[in-house]
Amino acid sequence: MEFSSKLLENAVNEMSQLPGIGKRTALRLVLHLLKQPEDQTHRLANSLNQMRTDINFCSNCHNISDTKLCEICANPNRNEKIVCVVEDIRDVMAIENTSQFRGHYHVLGGKISPMDGIGPGELTIQSLVDKVKEGKIEELIFALSSTMEGDTTNFYIFKQIEPYHITTTTIARGISVGDELEYADEVTLGRSIVNRIPFENSLKST
Amino acid sequence: MEFSSKLLENAVNEMSQLPGIGKRTALRLVLHLLKQPEDQTHRLANSLNQMRTDINFCSNCHNISDTKLCEICANPNRNEKIVCVVEDIRDVMAIENTSQFRGHYHVLGGKISPMDGIGPGELTIQSLVDKVKEGKIEELIFALSSTMEGDTTNFYIFKQIEPYHITTTTIARGISVGDELEYADEVTLGRSIVNRIPFENSLKST
Repeated sequence: MEFSSKLLENAVNEMSQLPGIGKRTALRLVLHLLKQPEDQTHRLANSLNQMRTDINFCSNCHNISDTKLCEICANPNRNEKIVCVVEDIRDVMAIENTSQFRGHYHVLGGKISPMDGIGPGELTIQSLVDKVKEGKIEELIFALSSTMEGDTTNFYIFKQIEPYHITTTTIARGISVGDELEYADEVTLGRSIVNRIPFENSLKST
Repeated sequence: MEFSSKLLENAVNEMSQLPGIGKRTALRLVLHLLKQPEDQTHRLANSLNQMRTDINFCSNCHNISDTKLCEICANPNRNEKIVCVVEDIRDVMAIENTSQFRGHYHVLGGKISPMDGIGPGELTIQSLVDKVKEGKIEELIFALSSTMEGDTTNFYIFKQIEPYHITTTTIARGISVGDELEYADEVTLGRSIVNRIPFENSLKST
């Protein structure tokens, strides 16, 4: 693409560095900004700059937070003995939306993935193992996505904390509420039968 | 969506103001930036800020340009008597890519669209009419998209310049090169028959 303006070209090039945004989309977004009042662009740019510079991670769970300790970790009504291991802030938000979990989180910041050059050292695994070592955790709930990378990460952490004999669980895999059995994939359906639960228990969930 | 950080929330909100980018996509983009080196975010923000502040429009054709007169208008080898009327810079880039046009452009900045609150006053129509009035233009080629808004805009401009008796043309509508006739829509196919051209002429085009 040849641009008639270096300023425009720079903006499009930087914009198209974002994942899933090609040159054409970037040009469309940038031209949209040019049609809007000038301060919309400045607000966007400043919010990005400020976020990148001042962003802070909770010293306990490593979630994104504006305070040293995030709201969840600072809440005395939450059970710090039960810790849910998740990949990033989106998983925390998704689980918080269910209102079914009153423990703490531990945000890994990714999954072990040698293909992408992410080893255990890039994640916050050591700080999790330290917490287990210090006897601060009674139950660890693995809630990573069930991909090869997720399973690898679960297993790596499991091996690290095995000597300390705490309870480790993983979120239930099964048929989504409201789904038709005939359209479910066989692995999920199989697991939902193997891991069946007492009928009375299903009456409790909201 | 509830965020654990005001900084993150601001960035996501501003990002989701862009067309076609919802809250979830905005969050994905912003989290991506957080994983990249800090200067990538700053380069993006600065390029947007700088573009919005310093952007300049060619004083003749109103295309985006870093100089007072854009490269095309400043080029003495181009025919300023033939002017192609387009909507925005993307159309200029598309036509320039064909290398088939050696005249000037006139960038309207949009199409007349009462639904979106865009009247003739929001576009650069007056400056085009002035150029025609001053006898600077011999042929005007309409190259707006053939939607209701495009046709309305063409007709509005046509009515304004009718008294000055210059040649007005519109780009040919027809079957795309390489397309199968059976899949063409009937309006396009119909027009391609009504506006058929001498066979010898088709041999000239590259």
